Amino acid sequence: MSLDTSPSPAGRAGDPVYYGGDYNPEQWPASTWREDVRLMREAGVNLVTVGVFSWARLEPQEGRFDFAWLREVLDLLEGAGIGADLATPTASPPPWAATRYEDLAPVDERGARYSHGSRQALCVVSPNYRRLALAMTTKLVDELGHHPAVRMFHVHNEYACHVPYCYCDHHAASFRAWLQRRYGTVEELNEAWGTAFWSQGYSSYEEVLPPRMTPTFGNPAQLLDYKRFTSDAYLEQFLEEKQVLRAARPDVPITTNFMGLFKPLDYFAWASHLDVVCTDNYPDPGDPDSTAHSALHYDLVRSLNKSAPWLVMEQTTQRVNWRAHNVPKAPGQMRAMNYQALGRGAAGLLFFQWRASRSGAEKFHSAMLPHSGVDAPGWAEVVTLGRELARLGRLAPARVQAEVAVVFSWPNWWAVEGVAQPAQDLTVQGQLDWMLRSLYQRLSTLDFCQPGEDLAPYKAIVVPSLYLLSDAEGANLVSYVEGGGTAFISFWSGIVDERDAVRLGPYGGPLRPLMGCDVLDVAPLPEGQVLEVEWEDGARTTATFWADVAVERDGKVLARLADGPWAGRPAVLATAHGAGTAYYVGTRLDQAGMARLYDLARATASPGPGPGTERTVRRDGADRYELLVNQTPTEREVQLTWPGTELLSGAAVSGRHSLRPWGAAVVHSKEG
Amino acid sequence: MSLDTSPSPAGRAGDPVYYGGDYNPEQWPASTWREDVRLMREAGVNLVTVGVFSWARLEPQEGRFDFAWLREVLDLLEGAGIGADLATPTASPPPWAATRYEDLAPVDERGARYSHGSRQALCVVSPNYRRLALAMTTKLVDELGHHPAVRMFHVHNEYACHVPYCYCDHHAASFRAWLQRRYGTVEELNEAWGTAFWSQGYSSYEEVLPPRMTPTFGNPAQLLDYKRFTSDAYLEQFLEEKQVLRAARPDVPITTNFMGLFKPLDYFAWASHLDVVCTDNYPDPGDPDSTAHSALHYDLVRSLNKSAPWLVMEQTTQRVNWRAHNVPKAPGQMRAMNYQALGRGAAGLLFFQWRASRSGAEKFHSAMLPHSGVDAPGWAEVVTLGRELARLGRLAPARVQAEVAVVFSWPNWWAVEGVAQPAQDLTVQGQLDWMLRSLYQRLSTLDFCQPGEDLAPYKAIVVPSLYLLSDAEGANLVSYVEGGGTAFISFWSGIVDERDAVRLGPYGGPLRPLMGCDVLDVAPLPEGQVLEVEWEDGARTTATFWADVAVERDGKVLARLADGPWAGRPAVLATAHGAGTAYYVGTRLDQAGMARLYDLARATASPGPGPGTERTVRRDGADRYELLVNQTPTEREVQLTWPGTELLSGAAVSGRHSLRPWGAAVVHSKEG
Amino acid sequence: MSLDTSPSPAGRAGDPVYYGGDYNPEQWPASTWREDVRLMREAGVNLVTVGVFSWARLEPQEGRFDFAWLREVLDLLEGAGIGADLATPTASPPPWAATRYEDLAPVDERGARYSHGSRQALCVVSPNYRRLALAMTTKLVDELGHHPAVRMFHVHNEYACHVPYCYCDHHAASFRAWLQRRYGTVEELNEAWGTAFWSQGYSSYEEVLPPRMTPTFGNPAQLLDYKRFTSDAYLEQFLEEKQVLRAARPDVPITTNFMGLFKPLDYFAWASHLDVVCTDNYPDPGDPDSTAHSALHYDLVRSLNKSAPWLVMEQTTQRVNWRAHNVPKAPGQMRAMNYQALGRGAAGLLFFQWRASRSGAEKFHSAMLPHSGVDAPGWAEVVTLGRELARLGRLAPARVQAEVAVVFSWPNWWAVEGVAQPAQDLTVQGQLDWMLRSLYQRLSTLDFCQPGEDLAPYKAIVVPSLYLLSDAEGANLVSYVEGGGTAFISFWSGIVDERDAVRLGPYGGPLRPLMGCDVLDVAPLPEGQVLEVEWEDGARTTATFWADVAVERDGKVLARLADGPWAGRPAVLATAHGAGTAYYVGTRLDQAGMARLYDLARATASPGPGPGTERTVRRDGADRYELLVNQTPTEREVQLTWPGTELLSGAAVSGRHSLRPWGAAVVHSKEG
Repeated sequence: MSLDTSPSPAGRAGDPVYYGGDYNPEQWPASTWREDVRLMREAGVNLVTVGVFSWARLEPQEGRFDFAWLREVLDLLEGAGIGADLATPTASPPPWAATRYEDLAPVDERGARYSHGSRQALCVVSPNYRRLALAMTTKLVDELGHHPAVRMFHVHNEYACHVPYCYCDHHAASFRAWLQRRYGTVEELNEAWGTAFWSQGYSSYEEVLPPRMTPTFGNPAQLLDYKRFTSDAYLEQFLEEKQVLRAARPDVPITTNFMGLFKPLDYFAWASHLDVVCTDNYPDPGDPDSTAHSALHYDLVRSLNKSAPWLVMEQTTQRVNWRAHNVPKAPGQMRAMNYQALGRGAAGLLFFQWRASRSGAEKFHSAMLPHSGVDAPGWAEVVTLGRELARLGRLAPARVQAEVAVVFSWPNWWAVEGVAQPAQDLTVQGQLDWMLRSLYQRLSTLDFCQPGEDLAPYKAIVVPSLYLLSDAEGANLVSYVEGGGTAFISFWSGIVDERDAVRLGPYGGPLRPLMGCDVLDVAPLPEGQVLEVEWEDGARTTATFWADVAVERDGKVLARLADGPWAGRPAVLATAHGAGTAYYVGTRLDQAGMARLYDLARATASPGPGPGTERTVRRDGADRYELLVNQTPTEREVQLTWPGTELLSGAAVSGRHSLRPWGAAVVHSKEG
Repeated sequence: MSLDTSPSPAGRAGDPVYYGGDYNPEQWPASTWREDVRLMREAGVNLVTVGVFSWARLEPQEGRFDFAWLREVLDLLEGAGIGADLATPTASPPPWAATRYEDLAPVDERGARYSHGSRQALCVVSPNYRRLALAMTTKLVDELGHHPAVRMFHVHNEYACHVPYCYCDHHAASFRAWLQRRYGTVEELNEAWGTAFWSQGYSSYEEVLPPRMTPTFGNPAQLLDYKRFTSDAYLEQFLEEKQVLRAARPDVPITTNFMGLFKPLDYFAWASHLDVVCTDNYPDPGDPDSTAHSALHYDLVRSLNKSAPWLVMEQTTQRVNWRAHNVPKAPGQMRAMNYQALGRGAAGLLFFQWRASRSGAEKFHSAMLPHSGVDAPGWAEVVTLGRELARLGRLAPARVQAEVAVVFSWPNWWAVEGVAQPAQDLTVQGQLDWMLRSLYQRLSTLDFCQPGEDLAPYKAIVVPSLYLLSDAEGANLVSYVEGGGTAFISFWSGIVDERDAVRLGPYGGPLRPLMGCDVLDVAPLPEGQVLEVEWEDGARTTATFWADVAVERDGKVLARLADGPWAGRPAVLATAHGAGTAYYVGTRLDQAGMARLYDLARATASPGPGPGTERTVRRDGADRYELLVNQTPTEREVQLTWPGTELLSGAAVSGRHSLRPWGAAVVHSKEG
Repeated sequence: MSLDTSPSPAGRAGDPVYYGGDYNPEQWPASTWREDVRLMREAGVNLVTVGVFSWARLEPQEGRFDFAWLREVLDLLEGAGIGADLATPTASPPPWAATRYEDLAPVDERGARYSHGSRQALCVVSPNYRRLALAMTTKLVDELGHHPAVRMFHVHNEYACHVPYCYCDHHAASFRAWLQRRYGTVEELNEAWGTAFWSQGYSSYEEVLPPRMTPTFGNPAQLLDYKRFTSDAYLEQFLEEKQVLRAARPDVPITTNFMGLFKPLDYFAWASHLDVVCTDNYPDPGDPDSTAHSALHYDLVRSLNKSAPWLVMEQTTQRVNWRAHNVPKAPGQMRAMNYQALGRGAAGLLFFQWRASRSGAEKFHSAMLPHSGVDAPGWAEVVTLGRELARLGRLAPARVQAEVAVVFSWPNWWAVEGVAQPAQDLTVQGQLDWMLRSLYQRLSTLDFCQPGEDLAPYKAIVVPSLYLLSDAEGANLVSYVEGGGTAFISFWSGIVDERDAVRLGPYGGPLRPLMGCDVLDVAPLPEGQVLEVEWEDGARTTATFWADVAVERDGKVLARLADGPWAGRPAVLATAHGAGTAYYVGTRLDQAGMARLYDLARATASPGPGPGTERTVRRDGADRYELLVNQTPTEREVQLTWPGTELLSGAAVSGRHSLRPWGAAVVHSKEG
């Protein structure tokens, strides 16, 4: 096993595709462990995560440790050639800790403190928590960090998952220190937060609090900074654990598990500190959009650290347990979903969890090994997939390359979904769905980039409501177009600077060179109002939700609003800038309108693989792997791009290729 | 009057049908009391409940008592031959108590304490509350317990009604003691609760808390035990009061008022401690299902203690006051609803309350005597019913006998509606509605039985989602079928043991001998998905909500899923077991499907009385009373089972009989 | 400028129509102030409100004051001939105050205290708050009160806006004192609150609390008194500030800004203390009923103090920022809305705010001067309106006179929307919408009167669900009819006295002489149920929501319920009483039914101006100003009542007159 700590574009050559799941042996008698390892081998499992929720077992009372049982488990795994992803158990302090140190638990915005008896009841800033977590991590790596089974360290679990925000006094003090580092004097803080409004001027940092319960909207800049601070505070704790692990074992890669489009943590900022990026993905099979949402999830995660490999760390085989109504995957659908991840570059496919629990709040979360045992249809699916993956080891170092990037940033997400916006129902998820739906029918893969990232590799970029951006970020987007790029920019972009202060003058700030018009005001449309949009050639599509009130300037008007109070105002403009072109969309065009726009721009010429199917390509030097997945319960035919060898069947294939319901194909060919 | 403390199957021969209501004389000047008693006599009232909310009047300051006014009321009642159901006023401590002893009031799961100024703000575990309640009860029985008007003691009021769960420190301590009695060592507690999951292992009982606010799902076994404990804690307080009353007056029956299908208290466990079972029933006349819900309510209450009489202790004449929109009963409907109760075995029919209040939160709750006085149409209905009941005294000892029993348990209710289930929208009420709707059209009466109860008296049993049951309970059901019984068992039965731990292997645990198949997994269906079900004879019905993923074993497949991802899997099976047959239903069949099943099983041959009408029979030796009720506002015709004498009119009747809108008939005949 | 402190029916002759907005110079550098003043002059601004949210700037630390910057602003305004409405900044204490004095912030009913960091986090009863606010007010008037720019004092801001009710211990003590003043002995309190119900009897005032979190409904009389007390407590604080201002400058009028139909404060009680009544009105342009709601809002505000002028103190030019989706006004609509206010008697039209903020929670609230500056279409609308108003100075002293009054009271509002009513969905807004919709199509203007007010000036009165009224108020309504008036009274009137105690006997209490029937009971109808109503002439309309169960007495039955459980019961009655007639409506007639009724009564003969248009008349001696407004985006024609001069165009007009989309006309003519 060779997940290593040096940056590499994907899994390294020689790595297998990792396969396995969370393994919680402490829930079972030792006699079961042997059966577990035997069945893992039967299923082709080569990596399991241990220790995530073991703190109470590893340290049953403060300072009294017991690692023997986990060492025995590691021995068994090692004996079977199964690697261990050893987790620090710090996400769930034991009852003794919560009882002894009240300040370990988070406090809500009304001042009520959470109780133990569930999981992850922790205040990440609490000095007692930090001390106990560090002691546990240190002891863990001392005791087990050098065990030969260990292939990776897994810090904590789903940071910030349930109670991302704590409002306790520790947080207040820590927030003040963070602000002081950021702003220096209290005068500068007042300026940054615009406290002249609503008589919020602070005379000293001592008066600053977390945004606890207030009579009405809090200060948006304070709310934004509390989100920044919180993401940083969790990261600081992660780095504290990482440092201990790295110091003891510089050769073992370190990860933690992300959750895709998860708002509280700025994963772009985090991902640079990870050797391997991992994600937990639980799409709802009862939601028809779940395939598209998973595609976006994986594309985002792959993009977070473009030089590190990434894994699906958690998914379910059939059902989760936390929705109101937990629809399972259809027979075969789990396999299709895994090929989707593989097609988007995954270096491994793991599940929560290996064996279904008998007790506790996740006992009805499906597992690799169901309650009913090896006769369950789910088990057969697990074994089948494991055997297939064993044949796909050569995929490990092959990379996915996208032609189009979505510009995305957490600070923008926090700000644009902040309080007292023109349209509180303008969400980042909604804007992504709107701008990307039509693109995903053309292109199987998109990258996600930060506004300040190098965009030169991409033919085109999509900029959905980038409300908040800094001057430098704005300049980066402008110079990308200048250099020949194509940009699609939606309304409500460039509105505020990084302090959430409005950029005065026509809206758009540093993006104005790309907008082609002066946006003088904005008009959220009444719910249900559908406006006509007329294109240059007389064609009509519709628009809803929002209309910019704009006058054209240096852009070419491609379409105008054709009725309603703002009839005649520009709706879509193309602006040549330097060697490139920017398209600005001032209303929520329908999908026909978006398709027209992308076609006009000719930036996304690849024909899609057809409805319900996905095509992605991974490359490793001259080796090309075309992955095709049928995301429907009926047979589908797809056009192969290149003739080659289908690796699952070993057959030579070319031209039209038939995919079974939920079926997949991996076609290898050589470039040139 | 002869409600006595010895077990009797119903009211005793010689008893009247009890008629009356809650009487709150403290809300009125003494001059009104004489008018009250005069009007009670006019309406045929023979039993009123006094004292329920009198604590502040009876003990206006701690230790200062005033019973004179209530003695005067009792004297007046006795003088008019009206019995008193004397209540302990302990459900609503006075403001002085709440002010002096803060810990009297309950605390919510976030740590906020309730205030006085409403009613029933009490922590049943608080030592101060217990001491004050006991002192009040002792004093009450000393002062008034021997008054000749007293016919029954009524403990407290609607136990656990508004704030069933308290999370205060008294509760924490008491919960720990309860757990220690149940489990002994902390190791056994950890085992029972499955605390190996999510790092919840306790090192000492001192760390155990009530399930206060947690970041996500609490431990399901802890939540279940807190429900058990809470029901027990209230019962303990009830028994404390009961003991005082019984010691002073062993000859006076003791009751408290239940609320039918009320989740927080295990009424089966409570009812054995009651001499008379009472219930409060407030169906919504604006809800078309209210007639069916009342039928079920009364059948359940009658079944709780099968050797005690039962009364309707509270109902409204017209409207309640606590719904968003309080639709009243139509003229005549109140009478029909009372004959429904009588038909299901009620020994008495009482109302909340005698006289409509001028003030307070229930002033717009209708009463026997409305605000507008004796000219109100409601008063005429009350008088009419009272006069009719006076002619029905011979019904008192006559019993209702059901042929079919529903297997029901509170611990199952608590567990199956617990957190993180496959379908959080699977509710006990929903499963009862689904399985019983079609049965109630065939049979007017059902009994409810605990899973461990003797089921031999019944032709058939219905088992809706009995998710939690013990081995012994499972064996009882199996042996019932073995002995020749017929069982209808729905999906999601036999899943966990009494600790909410999953029974491994194919689902079903001890019920597997009755299921005829191996349930390997379960699939909540997407909302709106309707599956076809094909029966042996090719007929098709539909199913929704849920599908078992099963393979047949020893059962005969009566119907299969005919489309969707699990097409071909068994949906309904019949399994011969011993001398009986069990029918297992692995999906939510539509009502046509349920009707087919009940018809196939031939267990429920009696033809129904026709839509909108009810027929029930009470028997006393050879005396048969057939009660017929028209639950609609239009005239209906019914078929009498036997010729006889209609007791309300005195007429001889037979064959087809016409019922006026909301009309009723009571036909007496002799067996054989 | 001559807004003066002597009572006057409207603005005084010689006054301009005031035009301007809130001006928050502290949000901008001093360099911007000069531009502000220049642009104000361009827009015709003549009055701006300063200081509303300036506390933290004026007193950056306790006792350290800085008035220089605001003096400079006042100098600039004075130099440009722009008046200042100088606000006390006491609505938003600075962070230092909140930090130093914890008890400054309000506490919710669960005991959680609000935090600073937003606005208006104050407990109006807190001694610390009172002391600091008084000190600030005193200092402000000392420093700036004599500045020549000052034309009006503006106390506080939107009293009680976000957190109207505080439940802290200061409030508890203050509530007790208020109760003791109202009721004297605790026995009288117990009587008034009906505490005999639910064991709520108090043995001492020390036991009385604000209505904090209770298990179920609180005592309705306590809840009602807490609303009375709270309105009084805020008023007391207002009067405290007023006294300081008046003492220093008896010549400067004093106001505060109301919010129209705002429930927590009894504006009738407040308005008599105001020299000028001001209101903030933010109708939702996305709601089709917003025009009608604005009309009602302005009619109500004009009526609060019938001898004082009134202003629109706040409105938005385009959008607000606090709805989920903030639809802007259409181009031109803002102007139409302002003519609506002018037609209803406004002496001035101001906006929140002058210049759109860059930061803070209201940065996306539109302003007179938008973010995009003077090129924005909104700016042009502001300038146009300002120029038009400059031509309308003669309107200032002209008064609006209504023919019909709506009887309205805050205590009734509080009580009828109290807990545990027969129909919790019976709302005052709903009843107003129902009874007034059809009237507003006939009459452009209505007055609002308190039940005890002199009603003689009105041809007719409308009484929507006046559930609570005193004997004296009832007698006033009866004597109004006796004297020849016409009254339209809806169901659920006259039910309780001022203590929320039911008036026994048939419902109606002192209004029974006007009802013509005995209401014996009431029946909220099932949702969706539509009853037929048959009129004397056989015509049929429908009714929903509610049916009185009544028998006719001395009234003439105009219509009866024609189906449903109460078929045949009277639905509408006319009762001659003295020289007048009362119409009683016992169900919610549809609008056709209401139109029939108003037509039958011939009380409202004026033909309406046609759909989507408004006509109002202001008079000043023999001068008549007919204002016509087109409230639609399409051209409309209206019939002028009198020939005259259209003041905006200067043209002579008569007969049919065309109004542009959102257009307005002001036609001057001479009486007689």
